[in-house]
Amino acid sequence: MIVQKYGGTSVADTGRIKSVAERVAARVREGDMVIVVVSAMAGETDKFVRFAHEITDTPDEREMDLLLSSGERITSALMAMAIQDLGLKSMSFTGRQVGIITDSAHTKAMIEHIEAGRLKAALNEGKVPVVAGFQGIDEFSDVTTLGRGGSDTTAVAIAAALNADLCEIYTDVEGVFTADPRIVPDARKMDRISYDEMLEMASLGAKVLHGRSVEFAKKYNVPLVVRSSFNTSPGTLVTREDEDMEKTVITGVTHDKNQARITIMRVPDRPGIAATIFNAIAAANINVDMIVQNISSDDRATDISFTVSKAEAKKAFEITQKVSDELGTKGVNMNTDVAKVSIVGVGMQSHFGVAATMFETLSNAGINIMMISTSEIKISCVIDVKHAEEAVRRLHDVFQLAKQ
Amino acid sequence: MIVQKYGGTSVADTGRIKSVAERVAARVREGDMVIVVVSAMAGETDKFVRFAHEITDTPDEREMDLLLSSGERITSALMAMAIQDLGLKSMSFTGRQVGIITDSAHTKAMIEHIEAGRLKAALNEGKVPVVAGFQGIDEFSDVTTLGRGGSDTTAVAIAAALNADLCEIYTDVEGVFTADPRIVPDARKMDRISYDEMLEMASLGAKVLHGRSVEFAKKYNVPLVVRSSFNTSPGTLVTREDEDMEKTVITGVTHDKNQARITIMRVPDRPGIAATIFNAIAAANINVDMIVQNISSDDRATDISFTVSKAEAKKAFEITQKVSDELGTKGVNMNTDVAKVSIVGVGMQSHFGVAATMFETLSNAGINIMMISTSEIKISCVIDVKHAEEAVRRLHDVFQLAKQ
Repeated sequence: MIVQKYGGTSVADTGRIKSVAERVAARVREGDMVIVVVSAMAGETDKFVRFAHEITDTPDEREMDLLLSSGERITSALMAMAIQDLGLKSMSFTGRQVGIITDSAHTKAMIEHIEAGRLKAALNEGKVPVVAGFQGIDEFSDVTTLGRGGSDTTAVAIAAALNADLCEIYTDVEGVFTADPRIVPDARKMDRISYDEMLEMASLGAKVLHGRSVEFAKKYNVPLVVRSSFNTSPGTLVTREDEDMEKTVITGVTHDKNQARITIMRVPDRPGIAATIFNAIAAANINVDMIVQNISSDDRATDISFTVSKAEAKKAFEITQKVSDELGTKGVNMNTDVAKVSIVGVGMQSHFGVAATMFETLSNAGINIMMISTSEIKISCVIDVKHAEEAVRRLHDVFQLAKQ
Repeated sequence: MIVQKYGGTSVADTGRIKSVAERVAARVREGDMVIVVVSAMAGETDKFVRFAHEITDTPDEREMDLLLSSGERITSALMAMAIQDLGLKSMSFTGRQVGIITDSAHTKAMIEHIEAGRLKAALNEGKVPVVAGFQGIDEFSDVTTLGRGGSDTTAVAIAAALNADLCEIYTDVEGVFTADPRIVPDARKMDRISYDEMLEMASLGAKVLHGRSVEFAKKYNVPLVVRSSFNTSPGTLVTREDEDMEKTVITGVTHDKNQARITIMRVPDRPGIAATIFNAIAAANINVDMIVQNISSDDRATDISFTVSKAEAKKAFEITQKVSDELGTKGVNMNTDVAKVSIVGVGMQSHFGVAATMFETLSNAGINIMMISTSEIKISCVIDVKHAEEAVRRLHDVFQLAKQ
């Protein structure tokens, strides 16, 4: 049993939808049981967002979800027709019909559980289910969406719920690369990568997979394959860490220009301050990425910096200003001309000097580091956005990622 | 309490959606309780149909309904945002959320009942509900659509369920005219028309209102107003017959070019034959419009002719051929170059010679009549499509409809 997810460029027009249907049909005729998950046709979701912003500066999130969920529904109906046209039985499923129950955090809802009864019944009747990705319903029966890239999450969640053998994510690239090939010409496609590394890569801006889908895949141990819908290249397998993987120190270099840095100056250094700030931001459903606070020794005040996505920067800035006023800080500033450049690899756990090499490489290139954040398997630096591409190329070189 | 329905041209782009929102808001601020029902943005439904036909010649009707229902959902979310942006509380409702329960006749479902609890709750909270027209769900929780023009039916059904004072149908024309003004330049807008006359006008091709919506309005005695969303002209009131109306003999002339005539030749003249033929066609969910059969006296066989819409002609023709073979007729022929021209008026019940005047007028113009069908308040003739417009102009003249 295989769950196949096709992204927006793979279903961009009716011709491509028919090509995907042929790919699905070939797999079914080989004897596999296939569940298809589809995204909106490329450009549709952007069009809906543009409509909403033509109407209001502050679109209601419940209404946004009803609007945005339409694109995937359209594709699912068309894909089911295309598969039927090839002589197979098929049937579309909306988020509600496939039983994806989420919380009520509109525009970024979390899946709570899947009631897959109707999906299983369709499979037992020999039908190819075509699921509208990216959406579910909440306890009020209102439509919710899972955030951009949420169709990946839909696919993995269904694979987990049905205990599928494999979840294939079809996209317009051939797999996961050591860096963005548009920036680093000799970037190499990986054959396999661990869940944890993929998780870091995804969260750091490698847009090939949605982070939450990798978390789901790891949690339920669903093997994921990222591959192209435009050719038969085998793609990249995302799976549990194994011995082969540990031979390389660094797996990849990622960058993310969709970042804004917010700094709160001279925060009183007493317990509970950070909680006050970040609770207020979390209450607005804004994801904070990096957080950096330096220990203060001299004057009982410190600076706190954090990053959020550019889209949420304005809202986060306003909330932060409000909280800062209450806390009596010296003010808040924001820089939207920043990028995050990161190196990822399980191997860095057992190799010394990786961080030093990264910092030295950037320094030699005259690139100033504004923030640093590390985890066990990644190191991220926030730098000026104008240096982002050069930083990626230099790090890809210094860690010799182009070599097999 | 007023239900306002806005058609596709009234919500064709985000600018028009904002204009409609202002119209709604003005009404709410005057103290009315308003429920808005919206169609898909002009062109969207046609685009979806084109997509489906690019994929397959025989799109599955369940999938068509999921596809087609998307357009109204998109408009409802955008309209709710636009009303919110003017400082009012508003909330979108899908067919499911508004509780429109239909049968499972996909692409032409009938409303069985409305569970309006959530709608009433929203009104009690001071919200302006914006309902996605044209759609409901069936007992399997699958999305159904009510057929083209079904948003009118949604509006009237909601007005009936909530016992609203008025249902306003906003469109791109100023009301109901004595004939199509594009064909008859001196056609006159009516101030009022009875349900029965409107029903005949609608079924005869005056596209300003969907026939089923008028039936609903008549059944539940919902006063309907047809008016333009582009100006403040008062429109045409569709209501119960009253004494004023009887003064005119003929209310209007309509024509319908979306017709095909199918004739079964030399049908054996024995009981049950007509039932066999039309049951088979009804089983395929095809609406038959006119049926004409002449009494046969000499040779125990007769010809049966009927009309269907052009879109359903091919399917109806195939079914008819199959049944005809079994019945042993002399064969079936079809003519798609026909139009139906009709005169409508409650006054014809008490005036002699109306039919004769109609036939004489067509005859004087050299127009051959292929089929005739009458009801108490209308007379329809099927003629060659090339004479349709001339027939309408001559009938409009002879019955002096341009005069007040």
